[in-house]
Amino acid sequence: MGYQAFTVQDAIERVRTLGLIGNEPVTAEEIGDGNLNLVFRIHAGDQHLILKQALPYAKVVGESWPLSLERAWIEQSALKEFAKVAIPFVPRVYHASKEEAFTVMEDLSHLTIVRAGLLAGEKYPLLAEHIGSYLARTLFYTSDFALGPVAKKQIARQYYNPDLCDITEKLIFTDPFYDAETNTIEAGLEAEVDRIWNDAELKREVAKLEALFITKGDALLHGDLHTGSIFASAEETKVIDPEFAFYGPFGFDVGQFIAHLFFAAYPDYDRLREERIKDIDTFWLTFASTFKALWEREAVEPFRSADGLVEDVLSTILQDALGFAGCELIRRTIGLAPVADLEQITDPTVRLERKRHALRLGTALIKRRTECKTFTDLRNFDVTEELSR
Amino acid sequence: MGYQAFTVQDAIERVRTLGLIGNEPVTAEEIGDGNLNLVFRIHAGDQHLILKQALPYAKVVGESWPLSLERAWIEQSALKEFAKVAIPFVPRVYHASKEEAFTVMEDLSHLTIVRAGLLAGEKYPLLAEHIGSYLARTLFYTSDFALGPVAKKQIARQYYNPDLCDITEKLIFTDPFYDAETNTIEAGLEAEVDRIWNDAELKREVAKLEALFITKGDALLHGDLHTGSIFASAEETKVIDPEFAFYGPFGFDVGQFIAHLFFAAYPDYDRLREERIKDIDTFWLTFASTFKALWEREAVEPFRSADGLVEDVLSTILQDALGFAGCELIRRTIGLAPVADLEQITDPTVRLERKRHALRLGTALIKRRTECKTFTDLRNFDVTEELSR
Repeated sequence: MGYQAFTVQDAIERVRTLGLIGNEPVTAEEIGDGNLNLVFRIHAGDQHLILKQALPYAKVVGESWPLSLERAWIEQSALKEFAKVAIPFVPRVYHASKEEAFTVMEDLSHLTIVRAGLLAGEKYPLLAEHIGSYLARTLFYTSDFALGPVAKKQIARQYYNPDLCDITEKLIFTDPFYDAETNTIEAGLEAEVDRIWNDAELKREVAKLEALFITKGDALLHGDLHTGSIFASAEETKVIDPEFAFYGPFGFDVGQFIAHLFFAAYPDYDRLREERIKDIDTFWLTFASTFKALWEREAVEPFRSADGLVEDVLSTILQDALGFAGCELIRRTIGLAPVADLEQITDPTVRLERKRHALRLGTALIKRRTECKTFTDLRNFDVTEELSR
Repeated sequence: MGYQAFTVQDAIERVRTLGLIGNEPVTAEEIGDGNLNLVFRIHAGDQHLILKQALPYAKVVGESWPLSLERAWIEQSALKEFAKVAIPFVPRVYHASKEEAFTVMEDLSHLTIVRAGLLAGEKYPLLAEHIGSYLARTLFYTSDFALGPVAKKQIARQYYNPDLCDITEKLIFTDPFYDAETNTIEAGLEAEVDRIWNDAELKREVAKLEALFITKGDALLHGDLHTGSIFASAEETKVIDPEFAFYGPFGFDVGQFIAHLFFAAYPDYDRLREERIKDIDTFWLTFASTFKALWEREAVEPFRSADGLVEDVLSTILQDALGFAGCELIRRTIGLAPVADLEQITDPTVRLERKRHALRLGTALIKRRTECKTFTDLRNFDVTEELSR
């Protein structure tokens, strides 16, 4: 059975053949955006399923890049790996086919995508805590500190994901920092962007973060942990789409999530700023305390007994995360993949002001990340002179 | 053809079948120490060959650990990779068999093993410069900075070497820092060793270096670059035995070589100290200037144009290298694989004093490595209060 992109009918037949639905009447539709994957929602009787199939290309602003189907297998493997250690936050997988690059999993339609939900005024009181716990568990348990180096190497080598890492490297660390074709710079933002392109210190620090991203294999990362990759309700949180999963630095997922919590404040900054900062606070506290507790209970030697090591690891994670958050803030403001949090601000003056804010906050986070010894240092970050300059 | 350990006769037949020697009279002998490999020297007419075959175990102080034959293939691949970028310093390979785990290469009998040569009073005026150039080239050209992340990942995944990495982790970063069976502590050294075992700060810093070793994939390392892995004469230098090769942190090979230059001073410290420090100086200057020159000419973007990045990378390499050098100094003094430089000192008082010195120097290098912003800071290291305490 070679690979072929499914029709709705193919998808239905596949789940029926797999015995996941019976012969009852079935409704099905393709609900993906068609950029990277086909996504079929299939309902039959009590069964509510999603069948996701990778496409052999990425469609981005009209252009089409070839993209390895391997990523479906990466996603399937990562979902299994994450389910082992963070099951409440991972969608249930019913079937995974490497050959045909598809996964059948539970339908999460009773939840909403967090970015859309927040924009619509939804509240997710447990989101920050849940993601803190999710990341502490996925990062710690897939690291050398939990697995020991031999078992970890065995797992890490399976997550060879050069295609998607390459996309991330280009879109996050490279293109936004020079006049690349992939950028979309709103009229009125040119001076601010010029400042970024001419900031040699900033560009050096970004290059350091990129080097960290491509050389440090701390743990199995989700790799694309923004608020569009999270389904939630007031009680539940599920992290989907780990097709960018690879062994990378601890701080990357942490930083991406922080960046998107910052973004979530922009639609109504004065009202939402404090709320989102509190979320970031809760997120980090949960992450750090859970990571530390897991370490103290389960880290392998000689790491567990090394006095003060976990504190040092956490402070490095924080600093790296702030740098990665800064890169994400910049690239989502002027790069290829804009966020609705900014784009849906209707007043052009306000929108420009918020975009300028995002760029300055990003710059400050990148350049001054090493000043943050503890998390409370971060609270001062968007009122610094950097922003008023 | 499955694997079988060769006899001398097998070795001769193999090189004859390969057409590397003809039907002329041949002399051959097994010259290895039999711990990890069989090494046959084969002379026939003008042809002088070495056939090296991996054994499926490591024999260490009587015990035998199973060891994957994969490492022969790792060594063959690394020799080829290093020859591409540093050909003057790599032995010529005539044939490599993955299945039978053997490599036929040029016989380097006209050179001496550097450790033995230095102990016998030989001079290697170009050694430090050659190894500086060798490491600058092998490390730079196998890194993301030269290859770009996609090509580098493709190469890096071939060097999955968990067995030998595990040995290094245990013997360098773990065992010497607690009362492990593998240690050999000379009578009279107990108090000094206790100090190490009770130094919480030291143990934390060693754990950080271990974490760096197992998570950072900067470049293809030799992995065991001590003076016993180098053949040299006054004019020539060849680095052999990269069976520990893997993608690891830039500073590791650099640090190991520095440690063994320190060791080389111990047989006659007052006379040799200045000479070896000068070697270390030359080594680092050559390494750093060559690495920088290669970077400026050939690094990929965005790294090449990132202002000040290469200086930052080099200063990190130096600090990490000093830490790794410190670990190597300690483990070779009390761990499983002692060095002749210390063991052959006949006067027990002097020998103990030098061992104590090595342990204190190692401790100082590990704990104070981040104080070394430039290399000149290092010159003060073995006269610090740390050593007189």
